[in-house]
Amino acid sequence: MSTFSSQLNTPITLDSDTLSSKILNPGAIQINFNGAFIVDDVLYEDSDLAPETNDIALPFQTHEISHIAIDIGGSLAKIVYFISNKSINNSQEDLGPQISKKLIHDNSSDTSEDSSHSLIDQGGRLNFYKIETERIDDFIEFIKKLMRFYDKKIHIMATGGGAHKFHDRIKEELDVEITKEDEMECLIVGLDFFITEIPNEVFLYSETNPMQFVNDTNSSNIYPYLLVNIGSGVSMVKVTGPSDFVRVGGSSLGGGTLWGLLSLLTDANSYDEMLNNAIDGDNSNVDMLVGDIYGTDYGKIGLKSTTIASSFGKVFQKQNGSDIETRRSKFSQADISRSLLYAISNNIGQIAYLQAKIHGLEKIYFGGSYIRGHPQTMNTLSYAINFWSEGKKNAYFLRHEGYLGSVGAFLKGQPMGWGKRKNSMNLSRSDINEAMKEVKERLTELSVSQ
Amino acid sequence: MSTFSSQLNTPITLDSDTLSSKILNPGAIQINFNGAFIVDDVLYEDSDLAPETNDIALPFQTHEISHIAIDIGGSLAKIVYFISNKSINNSQEDLGPQISKKLIHDNSSDTSEDSSHSLIDQGGRLNFYKIETERIDDFIEFIKKLMRFYDKKIHIMATGGGAHKFHDRIKEELDVEITKEDEMECLIVGLDFFITEIPNEVFLYSETNPMQFVNDTNSSNIYPYLLVNIGSGVSMVKVTGPSDFVRVGGSSLGGGTLWGLLSLLTDANSYDEMLNNAIDGDNSNVDMLVGDIYGTDYGKIGLKSTTIASSFGKVFQKQNGSDIETRRSKFSQADISRSLLYAISNNIGQIAYLQAKIHGLEKIYFGGSYIRGHPQTMNTLSYAINFWSEGKKNAYFLRHEGYLGSVGAFLKGQPMGWGKRKNSMNLSRSDINEAMKEVKERLTELSVSQ
Repeated sequence: MSTFSSQLNTPITLDSDTLSSKILNPGAIQINFNGAFIVDDVLYEDSDLAPETNDIALPFQTHEISHIAIDIGGSLAKIVYFISNKSINNSQEDLGPQISKKLIHDNSSDTSEDSSHSLIDQGGRLNFYKIETERIDDFIEFIKKLMRFYDKKIHIMATGGGAHKFHDRIKEELDVEITKEDEMECLIVGLDFFITEIPNEVFLYSETNPMQFVNDTNSSNIYPYLLVNIGSGVSMVKVTGPSDFVRVGGSSLGGGTLWGLLSLLTDANSYDEMLNNAIDGDNSNVDMLVGDIYGTDYGKIGLKSTTIASSFGKVFQKQNGSDIETRRSKFSQADISRSLLYAISNNIGQIAYLQAKIHGLEKIYFGGSYIRGHPQTMNTLSYAINFWSEGKKNAYFLRHEGYLGSVGAFLKGQPMGWGKRKNSMNLSRSDINEAMKEVKERLTELSVSQ
Repeated sequence: MSTFSSQLNTPITLDSDTLSSKILNPGAIQINFNGAFIVDDVLYEDSDLAPETNDIALPFQTHEISHIAIDIGGSLAKIVYFISNKSINNSQEDLGPQISKKLIHDNSSDTSEDSSHSLIDQGGRLNFYKIETERIDDFIEFIKKLMRFYDKKIHIMATGGGAHKFHDRIKEELDVEITKEDEMECLIVGLDFFITEIPNEVFLYSETNPMQFVNDTNSSNIYPYLLVNIGSGVSMVKVTGPSDFVRVGGSSLGGGTLWGLLSLLTDANSYDEMLNNAIDGDNSNVDMLVGDIYGTDYGKIGLKSTTIASSFGKVFQKQNGSDIETRRSKFSQADISRSLLYAISNNIGQIAYLQAKIHGLEKIYFGGSYIRGHPQTMNTLSYAINFWSEGKKNAYFLRHEGYLGSVGAFLKGQPMGWGKRKNSMNLSRSDINEAMKEVKERLTELSVSQ
């Protein structure tokens, strides 16, 4: 996907000793996020092994990190972990493609000590992986493999409902320490991090410009906002500061509803199949439009003839048959999929708008695994916000939309044996901005090609 | 249904000449709604012929009215018409049960001129009838039959989207004049009439008291309010005065969505079958509850373990099979029906609450054919309003919920050949209140039994 480009997607040589000693205060930042960037798809050695969610390179984080983070939701269990590039070649553990994926410019096998050591080679990458929560056994196996890879005990930061439900089991099976973190808090910490620290992460969607990046690293500007996290269900959180937030509402009509209903209405066996079905569908075969009722617009109150008056409103008619099989045969799976995707997305968009209006919020961030970068979903959510707010509010999306909670938990990591807890989230904003500015200047100076 | 009792459900003898000459100014009120009351189920001669929607008796309206009103929506076409009790025996037309239904105390066949002439016998009744919009042919046939009964041309007041879509066809086939009235305006006129003129029409719902009547005939108190009209889709109208209203929003997730999805997911062939299915269902077999995710409450943000986190969230799991038939076999139609009824009703309740909050409205009236007096639906809507508003807002229901628009159009009736348009809606509120008060006092004096 060429749209998934990064400002910093080419290898950069640099005088790392100078850089690390000069810019950073290593004692204050346990995880070094400076210069972090999203690894572009084209950089993966084998495109088939490119992860579903792009890695985030941490060029200045050279040591392994002693913790991983998990976020176990109702439908999906997510994991975030760091792996240094060099460790991939050093480990004896066969990691499989999920862990051992290589980058084209990862020349760690090059033993020469010249200046061609790439930025990617030097640091490491944050990895993102998810699996169905019902496959919790496989999830635990995955963590075991990761522990063998690290060849040491790791600490687990855990969030989401499953952090409570599966706590005892994970602790016993893995013999690890687990720190439970509040779900909403992790979402916010994760989102704040993505907004302020990761270039080309946040974007506006429109049909003509599907990924218009918004790089707002000035952290004083980001509040207040509404976070709409769409997983199995929907949570809406009003955020007015780094640790100042309240869950103002939600909806039970979320991803689980779309997946659940479509698994009873279509042959699709995966969420991606369902989304693919929707692409070719025509919802007007299933939905009752204003034009179907009026024969025309209902101009007096501004309803166009193409406005959906009733989702699935054309289905329940005598002419469609008195037995269920006849009725089912009248409607295509593609049309049904598209109608339901519209219905759920529109509904979330409307409720998000109403909550944003009540709380005086202009910016609405959509997170959660419901979206999956699917254009129709983002278009519908964007359209709903734009329609209801008359263009006054904006819908923001993220490339790591499904990992807000897990990244938040990762950032809150404070493994046993570490010193005082200080990662970048605990530094003052001005400290971080100052450091980032210097890193970026150095990276620009040091880049060998663009 | 004993709960459907009326203050005025027993026959009353009265000196009608005195009453009509003294109280009313006949020239000013073309349709005489004074003393109107809902005819109790027990008063119908043959309970099998009791209409789905109770008639409204107009004891002082002795002449036929020269117009009927229709409201053609996306799924249902409604009709409201007046029939004087005496005319039933005089007409040669075989009307069938819908029109010829008799009341136990309708002793119009009693030729004696004593004082036992009942109130019902003297006046007539507003009748309510509906049919699927797709059966528009039958609907037109019904109107033809009605015209033969009246034995004269009638004027048709028409509202709803179908008033536009089917205007030319109805006009040609029936050779009648049709006046189109705005849908939202008719809803408000109808609702205002039900609130202020019909005793025991509006009620609050709770499980312990399913029909707590609210008789608020003081019209100065009724504004402002939010009307939530749930038909195929949902319209929400903010009303601040008799002709001061604005459609503030709506939802495509309405009755058409529930009926449409359930007709693809269950064998039910009618909406009532679907509602009956839901009664015995257990939505927790289908929905993912907070407790399913957390193993417990999520107390920190006030979510109980029984809260629905994701409607249909339990359905899409690998363990439920990789083919659609296997998946379908895992879930009962009752559970599916109940889950979807909850999902749609909760969602409407939440959006209604948010709109009411934005517009500072305390009273929320639910109308439309979605509700149908179904306890679970009303309970869910009431619960949602109460939950979100923390008890500060009230959900009101109506016994003629599906006929707001058609009654509104009926009231706006101004048949050809009539004098200046003046029905009770055009009198000042104080005039009406004064007249009603006097009628009620006289009725109380004249009643022979309670």
